[in-house]
This record gives sequence, C-alpha cells and structure tokens, in this order.
Amino acid sequence: MVTTIGPHMSSNASLRVPRRRVAVIGATGVAGQQFITALQNHPWFEIAAVAASTRSAGRSYGEALRDSGSGAMRWYCDEAPSPAVLALPVENAAAIDPESADIFFAAVESDAAREIEPRLAAHRPVFSTASAFRGETDVPIAVPGVNLDHLALIDVQRRRRGWKGFVVPLPNCTTMGLVVTLRPLADAFGLRRVIMTSMQGLSGAGRSPGVAALDVLDNIIPFIAGEEEKVAWETGKILGQVAGDTIAHHPVVVSATCTRANVREGHTETVTVELEQSVDLAAVRDAMVAFGGELCGRGLPSAPEHLIEIHDDPYRPQPRLDREAGGGMTTSVGRLRLDAVGLRYVLVSHNTKMGAAKGAVLVAETMAADGVL
Amino acid sequence: MVTTIGPHMSSNASLRVPRRRVAVIGATGVAGQQFITALQNHPWFEIAAVAASTRSAGRSYGEALRDSGSGAMRWYCDEAPSPAVLALPVENAAAIDPESADIFFAAVESDAAREIEPRLAAHRPVFSTASAFRGETDVPIAVPGVNLDHLALIDVQRRRRGWKGFVVPLPNCTTMGLVVTLRPLADAFGLRRVIMTSMQGLSGAGRSPGVAALDVLDNIIPFIAGEEEKVAWETGKILGQVAGDTIAHHPVVVSATCTRANVREGHTETVTVELEQSVDLAAVRDAMVAFGGELCGRGLPSAPEHLIEIHDDPYRPQPRLDREAGGGMTTSVGRLRLDAVGLRYVLVSHNTKMGAAKGAVLVAETMAADGVL
Amino acid sequence: MVTTIGPHMSSNASLRVPRRRVAVIGATGVAGQQFITALQNHPWFEIAAVAASTRSAGRSYGEALRDSGSGAMRWYCDEAPSPAVLALPVENAAAIDPESADIFFAAVESDAAREIEPRLAAHRPVFSTASAFRGETDVPIAVPGVNLDHLALIDVQRRRRGWKGFVVPLPNCTTMGLVVTLRPLADAFGLRRVIMTSMQGLSGAGRSPGVAALDVLDNIIPFIAGEEEKVAWETGKILGQVAGDTIAHHPVVVSATCTRANVREGHTETVTVELEQSVDLAAVRDAMVAFGGELCGRGLPSAPEHLIEIHDDPYRPQPRLDREAGGGMTTSVGRLRLDAVGLRYVLVSHNTKMGAAKGAVLVAETMAADGVL
Amino acid sequence: MVTTIGPHMSSNASLRVPRRRVAVIGATGVAGQQFITALQNHPWFEIAAVAASTRSAGRSYGEALRDSGSGAMRWYCDEAPSPAVLALPVENAAAIDPESADIFFAAVESDAAREIEPRLAAHRPVFSTASAFRGETDVPIAVPGVNLDHLALIDVQRRRRGWKGFVVPLPNCTTMGLVVTLRPLADAFGLRRVIMTSMQGLSGAGRSPGVAALDVLDNIIPFIAGEEEKVAWETGKILGQVAGDTIAHHPVVVSATCTRANVREGHTETVTVELEQSVDLAAVRDAMVAFGGELCGRGLPSAPEHLIEIHDDPYRPQPRLDREAGGGMTTSVGRLRLDAVGLRYVLVSHNTKMGAAKGAVLVAETMAADGVL
Repeated sequence: MVTTIGPHMSSNASLRVPRRRVAVIGATGVAGQQFITALQNHPWFEIAAVAASTRSAGRSYGEALRDSGSGAMRWYCDEAPSPAVLALPVENAAAIDPESADIFFAAVESDAAREIEPRLAAHRPVFSTASAFRGETDVPIAVPGVNLDHLALIDVQRRRRGWKGFVVPLPNCTTMGLVVTLRPLADAFGLRRVIMTSMQGLSGAGRSPGVAALDVLDNIIPFIAGEEEKVAWETGKILGQVAGDTIAHHPVVVSATCTRANVREGHTETVTVELEQSVDLAAVRDAMVAFGGELCGRGLPSAPEHLIEIHDDPYRPQPRLDREAGGGMTTSVGRLRLDAVGLRYVLVSHNTKMGAAKGAVLVAETMAADGVL
Repeated sequence: MVTTIGPHMSSNASLRVPRRRVAVIGATGVAGQQFITALQNHPWFEIAAVAASTRSAGRSYGEALRDSGSGAMRWYCDEAPSPAVLALPVENAAAIDPESADIFFAAVESDAAREIEPRLAAHRPVFSTASAFRGETDVPIAVPGVNLDHLALIDVQRRRRGWKGFVVPLPNCTTMGLVVTLRPLADAFGLRRVIMTSMQGLSGAGRSPGVAALDVLDNIIPFIAGEEEKVAWETGKILGQVAGDTIAHHPVVVSATCTRANVREGHTETVTVELEQSVDLAAVRDAMVAFGGELCGRGLPSAPEHLIEIHDDPYRPQPRLDREAGGGMTTSVGRLRLDAVGLRYVLVSHNTKMGAAKGAVLVAETMAADGVL
Repeated sequence: MVTTIGPHMSSNASLRVPRRRVAVIGATGVAGQQFITALQNHPWFEIAAVAASTRSAGRSYGEALRDSGSGAMRWYCDEAPSPAVLALPVENAAAIDPESADIFFAAVESDAAREIEPRLAAHRPVFSTASAFRGETDVPIAVPGVNLDHLALIDVQRRRRGWKGFVVPLPNCTTMGLVVTLRPLADAFGLRRVIMTSMQGLSGAGRSPGVAALDVLDNIIPFIAGEEEKVAWETGKILGQVAGDTIAHHPVVVSATCTRANVREGHTETVTVELEQSVDLAAVRDAMVAFGGELCGRGLPSAPEHLIEIHDDPYRPQPRLDREAGGGMTTSVGRLRLDAVGLRYVLVSHNTKMGAAKGAVLVAETMAADGVL
Repeated sequence: MVTTIGPHMSSNASLRVPRRRVAVIGATGVAGQQFITALQNHPWFEIAAVAASTRSAGRSYGEALRDSGSGAMRWYCDEAPSPAVLALPVENAAAIDPESADIFFAAVESDAAREIEPRLAAHRPVFSTASAFRGETDVPIAVPGVNLDHLALIDVQRRRRGWKGFVVPLPNCTTMGLVVTLRPLADAFGLRRVIMTSMQGLSGAGRSPGVAALDVLDNIIPFIAGEEEKVAWETGKILGQVAGDTIAHHPVVVSATCTRANVREGHTETVTVELEQSVDLAAVRDAMVAFGGELCGRGLPSAPEHLIEIHDDPYRPQPRLDREAGGGMTTSVGRLRLDAVGLRYVLVSHNTKMGAAKGAVLVAETMAADGVL
C-alpha cells in the first residue's frame, strides 16, 4: 500500500491523504459505471485496473461496454467515461491479482461476490455493493453518516478469517434512503414501526438485461424479488449497535412494498413511521437538518453539503429533479406531516450514487481520512 | 320519464328495463369521454344530449373534442366514439333543459357541479363524478356492490330539498379501488387502520391541460392536491351505515399518500390494513373472491363477472395488463400477504371506468333494474 | 390434410372452408403471441400444437411465458391467451412432427428458421415471419392485397425442392406498411424513388431481451441493424412481377432510415415518394381508398374493412390511436401532401399484427378460401 | 450602455469584454429558463431584470415559476436557478423600461414579440427566439458559425426603422441543427435538395400548457403546426447571402416532416441531402469536423469546443446521450452514409440551448467580442 508522504499527497480542503491505486470489479454494469464516474477524477484515488466477467476480459473497457447483441455502447451515467478509462484493459474478475490495486471496489452479482470478494479481502480492503456478505455477523453494512462505528467489526472479521484486508458491503439501494432518514429519527425519538412503499428507478435492475421497455412502459411493476426482505433485515442491522463481536439489531418493524416505476434513476419512497415519542414537525425537521453535519464538514471529496435536504414544496421531492442533489449523495425529503398513524414523508435517493457506488467511495474516503485504510 | 312498456323495452339476460334517454354533462373531458363510451351502445340507455362549457357549446361533439391550441382531436378511450355521437350538438351545460333527458350523467369540475347539478336534480336523477356534494349529510356516495343501501338517503334528499330528482355522486377515483377491497375485509374481520400509497394514472388529472409530459416523463410526482383528504374522508363515509337521515361514518383511520406516475390509465395502490381480528390469508382470499357476487349475477350491462380478481403471480396486478379487467370494472388484487403490521396487498383499479363514468352508469343500472329510476 | 366436407365446415359470410389444425412455432415470442391471439378463436383454424426452443419445451405454454429471471409472465398482446392455450404442452420446435398439424405458422429467429422451416415444408405449408428464405428466388414474400399473384412461385418451389408443402414468408414488419401504401401508387402513377424514416415500436425488437427501458426512456435510438437493407430489397421484390420461375424486382430506389421510439406497438413511417407521373392529391387519395377492396370484400376472418384508411386530421395517424385500426390490419395514412420533391405522407402500421403474425394468417386464409391450402 | 474599462472588465481566455447588464423577457417559459441558466453565472453578462406576462408581473421569479393550477414549481433545466435569480421581481414584459438593461434577451410568443421587441429595439439590442421578425427583409436570422456576416443587416434595420438598438432573432429550434450541418456541405459541395424528418423533444412545445402526457405517452405525434414551413423557409434565408440591403435566399429545396416524440429535450433529425457535386464520405466528414473552428477558438463563454461532433457508432447520436454535448451547443451527427438518393445522416441538437436561448447568448457574445454590442 502506498504510504509515502510527499508528491503523492492529495489535498481536499485541509485533508492530506496519501494517494491510492484502486480497482473496480464488475466495472461494466450500471453500478460499476457509477464507480468509474465517482473515481475517474478523484483527488485521492486513481483507477489502476478494471475487471469484469470472462466475456469482457481481454477487451478494452470501451469495447466491453458494447451490447453483445446490438453493438451499441451502453453507458448510463450522465458523466462520460474518460478516454483513459475507456482504454483500460478489462481483467477477468475471477482471477485479478490482489496486488494490482491498494483498494478494491466491487459491484458484481451476489453469487460472483461470494467467490471473488474473499480472495481479494485476504489481502486488500474490498468495498462492495453486493448482498453476499451483508448477512455475516462479522461484516458491517456501512452507511456514511449513519453507522460507521460498525466498522469496528473489521477487526473481528480479520481475526476470524485471517484476512489482511476486509469486506465492507453497502446496503441494498432501497435501504439506503430509508436508513439515512430513519437514523436521526431513531436517535431523537425512537423507532417502533416503519411502513414503506418504493417506486424504484430502472437502473437498480442493472444493465444485462435490465428491465424490458415493453414491460415497464405505461406501467408499474408491483414486485421486485427479494427486495422487501432485504430492506427490512438490513434496516434493523444498520440501525443496530455493536455488541462485542457482532451487531445487535434494532427491533424496528419494517414493512415494505417495493415496486418498479418507469424512472431512469432515483428511488422514491413513501414512508410512515411510528415513533416511540410523540413529536412535532419542527423537532423532526431540526433533527433531519442537523443530521450528518460532522461527516459533511470533513472535506471528503464525495460527501455532499447535507445528508438530508428538506423540501417545503409539496410537489417535491421528484426523482428527475432531486436525484442529483448533493452530487447524488443527498437524500431529499418532502411532504413531512403527522397523522393518527405517525410521521409521514416522501424521500428520493440516488440508487446508484449514494445507494451504491459513490456511497461506497465515501465510506472508503472516511477510512482514508481517518488513516485506517 | 319514458315508462311505456313494449317496443322500448330492452333486455339483458332476463332483465327487462324500460329504455331511457340520457344526457352527458361535461362530455368533452376524460371522464365525460368514458361516459360516452359506456353509454353509446347501451341496451337500456340512449344518449339524447351532450353538454359542456360555453367554449364548446354550439359546436358538434366531434369539433368540441379538438384541442383549441393544436387543433388535434383529443380522445382518450380505447373505444372510438360513434359517428352518431360525434355529430351531436354540444349544449351549454349551465343552461341545458332538464326535459332534454330522463337521466343525467355529470362529469364536471366541482365548482361547476355546485351550479349545474342542483338545477337538474330538481327535476331529474343526476349521477355525478364531481366531489361537490359528497360532503352533504343527505347525499350518499354510491359504490356498486359496496354501499348501495346508502341510496336510501335519496328520499331524505328529495324531502329536504324539494327535488323531484336527486344527486348521487361517485367517490374520488382513488377511493374506489380502496373501498371495493376494504368492504369485504370490514364485513368479515373489522377494520382499524389503513395505510395506502397510490401511483395514479394520468387520465385522473383530466384533459385540459392535464399533466404536462415535461413534468412526468422519467418521474414520479409525490403530491396531488386534496386527494389524500378525500380518500380518507370518503372511505369512512362509504363504509359507514345509514343512521336515520344521514350516514354514520366508519371509524377506520385512513392514512394515504397519493402520487402521480407516468401511466396512462389505471390507479395502482399499495395497501396495509390493520384488522380487528387476526386472519389467515385463505380467509381473506375467500372473502374477496365471494364479494359482489349478488351484484355481478343480476345481468346488469356494465357489471363485471367479479368485483375483485385475485392474482397469485407476484408481478400482478400491473396497470397496463389489468386495468381493463372486467371491462374496467373489476379491481385486481395481488401480493396478498400478512406481516407484523397487518394485511398487505396491491390493487389496480380503472380510474375512469369503475372509478368514475362506468361506475356511475352501473349505479344507475342497479336502480333501473330495481325499478326506482 | 383434413378435406372432408360436412360438420367440419366453418362459415364466415358466405365462405365455406374446411377446418384445419394449425401449429405455432416460436409461440412464446412477441410475434408468436400474436399468432396465438390471431388463431385462438379462429373460425377455420384450430391451434393443435405450439412449439418453442428447448428451454421452453416440455412445459405448458403458460409456464413457458414466464421470464426465466424474474418469474413474471410476459405477455404483450391486449387480448389475453385462453386457458386452453395456456395449458397446451410446448413442443421442441427443432423436433416437432410435421404430422402434428395441417398448417404451420412460424415466428422464429432467422437462424432457427433455416433449420426448422425446410423440415416442415417438406410435408406441410409453412407461413413464416422470419427473413431466412425471403432472399430465395423461388420464394415469394407474401403481402395480402399487394402481391398474392407471387404465390405462383410455390409450384416452382415444390418442384425444385421436392417439397409437398412450401415456405411463404411475410416481409419485415417495417416493409409492410410501406408496400401496402406504395402498391396503389405504383399501379396508378409509377414509382421512382422512396425516402422513408421509421419510428418503430418496441415490440418489433422481440421479447428476450427486447429493448432495455434504460436505453429507450426519454430517447430515440437511430439505428436497427440490418433493417434498412431489408426494407429496400424486400420492397423491390414485393412490388416486382412474376417472370417465369422467379420475381423480376421493381426498380424503385428505397432509401430508409430506421429508428426505435419509446412506443409499445405500431410502426410510424414518414414517406416521400417520387412518382413517374405528376399527380394531384385527389387521385392519390382515390387510389389508396380503392386499394384492397377485392381482398376486403371476400369475408376472410382476419381481413379488415379497408387495407388503407386516410386521415384528414393532420395530427393523425398516431401509433397509440391508430395501430389497432381494422383489428391491426389497416394501414393508417395521414398528412398526404405534395411538394417540390414529391408525394409525402405519414403511415402507421401494426408491426406484429398486419406486419407479422396476423398478416401471415390472412395470407393463409386467402389460400384456404381459394381451395389451394 | 456600460463601457467603462476597469473593475467591470471580465476575462475569458484572452478576451477582455466590458461587463453588461442584461434582461430576460419571457423568463418563465422553457426557453426563458434556459436564458436564465445560460446567463446566471456569465462572465460578461449580469441578469439585471426579468420580465414575463402580466400574470407573473409583481411576483418574485421563484413564485412566478409555480404552476397556477397545481402550485408546483415548474423548472425544466438540469441546472438549478440561483437564489439571487429566484428573488428577482418579475416585471411586466409589455411595459419594461428599455433603460433597465444594456441588452435584452427575449423568449416570448410571436404575437407578444411583435409588440414588445420593437419598443425595446428602438433603444437596445434585442436577441430573440421568436419567429415574429424572421420574415423581415432587413432582419438577419443569426446562427453562430453559420451566417454571422448577415448581422451586417443590422445597419439597414437601424437606418430604416430609426432604431438605436436592433432585433436579431434566432431560427426555429428545428432549423438550427439542420443549418449547422448543411452550411459546411453547401460551402464544400453545393446543396440541391434536403429531405428531413424530425423527432422533436417536448421542451420545444413550451411550458404552458406544453404537450399533455396523455397525448404523447406510448406515442408519436406526426404534426407540429407551422414547423415544416418555418424550417424550409428559414434554411433558405440562413444559407443565403447578403445582397445589398437584404438576403438573397439559397435556392435549396427543403422538404421536412416534423413530429413530436416522448423525449424531454433534444431534437433528432434524419436528413437526406442531394448535393451539387459527387462526394465521398471522407470529404464530408472532413468538412463537418473542420466547420466552426474559428468561432470555437475565440474563447467565447458559451461556445463549444466543436460545432459538430461526428459519431462512428451507428447507435449514436441519441438525444438522451448527446443533447448536452458541448454544453448543449454541439450538433451531434452520426450514421453518415451515401446511397442512390444522396448523403444521409442523423443529427441531434439541443433545442432550447443551441436551438434557442444559449444560441442567442452566443450570438451576443460574438458581437460583444467584436466590440459591436
């Protein structure tokens, strides 16, 4: 790991962090593309390698982005990939050398993650968007600003598994906006039950083949396999507390209905929360506005100005207007109101930025800034 | 009112009902177009007149459908209007002669309804999709199969207001699918609380100007002014009981979040229900399947085979696939499940057929078949 | 082949045609689903078998329609498949017994068609939507009302290949609307050059995987591989003349640009035609309106009332409003005008009904009615 | 007009241009919003005033953006309006004081433009997106890089009309991409005929009411009133030559079919060009790549790096991927090919940036840099 201080040092605000070589595993998928976008002009990290399935290995990254059927280049981020990145050779994710980078960012399917991530984690830090290891007792599910104290489990993980590196997964993209907004509520007022309906963007379903236009045009698809269980279980773990060598889950009940809408990017969620304490809206608003201030004030390259932005306009948040808030890292909240059931609001969260790749990069940045990466 | 028996008699199944001349008020809007569609080949009813605002009055119906800006004919039903209907002269809704028809179907904005409907109701039955009179204590909000005993209030209404006719409004289109599915649950298991999120079709916002494509493409709009309050209040009234000269509301708490999706037609709702009694899914399914059997078995022209259809495929119901179930009159239910919060499901209801025009026609049909129209 | 006369005879108008057992090959795809829709309540034809790839073989048709990834049933026609069809066992297309039906309708990829269709054609008539055999000199590309005299090549085909049956392909779906509108122009005024731009519906790209929503939402895709060459070449052949044992192509120059639009179904084409003779619009209109009258007057079950419908409203034709004209078998034409370049118009044609499956069924019907099937 | 040199001087590259106060007329519409976006952080221009219809006058700009019906803020640019701009008072466009700014940018309907623009032009430069004055013989239709020599007509205009300022309109947004690509072809090879089909984005239809989602979802609208005539006539004028006190039109024949697609922003056009000379594709490509180099090299704030970008990927250009090329100022060209009819290509042009507001700002920048504004 490069640790020399001097010309390699980067600076952002007052932070001075040694420069690191990073690799993106699963680089051709939608989340992988967002990793490229988040990392290609990064002040601390430099993309040293990209890897994907054997189908793509051996081609340039630019060629590997082409659709095998139509020949079209399929790129889904608003920011274009740089020529340097397009020219990188794609390595075989299953065989990539752990020495090829200091840090690995992985966005592969869960089955592939079970093979690839441990092999790399034996030597290097691995930040992952896959669900493969989220369920392990010695694996934290990291959410910037929400539960980074859970990273203490990394030591447990290393000790038990004999790894020099580690695996830190991010949550499911639908869990992300929810836990960012629930954390300040849990801390200030206590959580009992959460009822949530999501209208999820298409990018969450990935690139090959993704959602067929014939299925979603003029339509809502009322089911996403496995999603509701993930949201419920992960929320309890993320809001839980480190207890010895594991996490004691928060007892909150999460009842989710997850649907797919004809929206390119951005997950919209309608949320009803039953709190332990009675609240007024001003206190809720204050808690949300104050939330994340410490994280956002550290000068981390991928951190937004605010973790939560509150809209008074009842027609906000909207995914098309608000998904890019804070560079895709701010959760937008609107329609805050109280009724006989509880506190209610609507949120929009960028599912492939904060909810996946760029969120993982921000976790890595916090560790780099803390000198523990 | 035409009551002669003989050549005017229509038949459907074994029903013999005298033929009636009907008028459609607000005929150029989206719900008005659905009235035309529901009535133009009706075995009992014959469109004798159409009326709209002064802007349209004096033109033919076909001409009045043209967009004033672009000149395009704006018609939104899958079924085409007949040449005979297109040739009808449009009358001024504010001045139409109550003698011009036996029955009036009105689909006008609430402010206009306050002026137009009482003038006609003084002489004739008026079935309305407007919210104007829903709040009156002597006015039932009629839902076929759900609460037609509330029509007993018509006598109160006539007595108090000195009318020969009456006003019977349908509920808000978003209330419709909800009360159709809640009625069998309320009857069998008792209702306590309902948490609902809607993803509503575009047609519910009407035709002039309706929802701008620029606002809803690649987007979800998280607010529809006044909708959530209507759904909550109307549900309590519709599920309530006749108590003397008024309706005693059901005490159910309804907590709704209403959003607009980029779907042409059909409202999708995710529903969580807390019941009085503990249930199993088989009993819930049985109650829903059996619901409405009496109404559907009467041979009414606009009645579907089933008021509720249950899907086992978790990817159903979808608005594009299921909105036209039962000729747009069946509420499709799927994703039935139980969790720690309660009973949960997703429904799709056709907002301008069952949820507006054709639902009103079905109410009229039940009264005609009962000989009370 | 069933030829007995008597209880098997069907009637439509005055036609009496012996009833036939038919099979649909490639039944799970979008065009295959349209074959099912066109045939499931057919007065002359009865679906005796369905076949698809080995992946689907051995399952019921209903099960085979499920998406292997998501588990959702993927059905794209407005008309639902009948329970009887859903229960049919799916046979392996590569191995289906030619004795299992009297007539085969095939909607498979071109590579598969090269294997499957000749094996069946050795024994039975095969009507195909694949491009595999369109280029053969002894194979007519059949378009109802346009060039059914080309079916004379069937005798050549049988003689040369030693087949008892035959292969008759339909044209590419984008060619269809074009040749239907060009035929009357060619006959009356002579064709020199055609410049066409298509905005094609999603269903034309098929079902697995079809067009990804991420690629086409808020977008136009300006290329469809191979499509423009097919349109140009096929148009010349279809408008050509039987010359001995082959077709002498029409010398018309066809310059096409084919694009994909976010439209579910229906191809829209803007057409500019340079004619041999100078014309006025009234003569063009007369030629188009009169076109196909003989075919449409025969009482064939799948024939529309008119092959071409002309709109005076400049905002028509639109795919959503006009694709189902004539049961999806009428080509809708609008914006007829002349300028310095030539005759210009816009057309909408249903790409999977007239442009594929139902068009093939209509060809079979004409042959059945002629007693040559 | 502020002409002092010193602290007011701005710099971009080596250019030093005196700072100007500008006003945006019609600021609440879609093109007006793009003017705000193009000007709010401009190094040379400072938004001193915004004006709109009497309905908006007297409110803040932020309030005036709210939809009168729904109350939602309707903003359509990707870039958010600054708080300073949102706080500006909206003036009445019909009565705004010409002294309130040095330069006026106007994006109002043509009828309003006929009243408002001459009143301002009597005193100040007016750059306009309206069609009102495009037809006047002493009014140039300005396109950056294409015909800025036509600005010589400003002197004629001032002389004839007694104005101290002037009116310079931009072309119709659909003409823009066409003339940018035709200019290098006309110069190098000579133009004879152009056949073009457009698939135009929704923003071109404006904001109130714009295109209804119900009309365009799952659809193509084959007509835009007046558009085709504008494209044909304006192209001839823009490609023409200054001849004394007027413009001698280029004799090119332009045959356009203009349609509306369900695309938020960006016009796609398929183009067939008959040239005077025979060409090969390499020469065409060279001419297009070289085009505009002088303009793009001047360091103007709104100029892109290239006026035309050529794609080799046949699946490009696509409006969603390419509309923002060069900050919305580059015309993307793809599918370059030759056939028996002529040269063919597909282009994408940003209709409200290069095709309207930001294009007008760039014209103003060229004049400011030349010291003639």
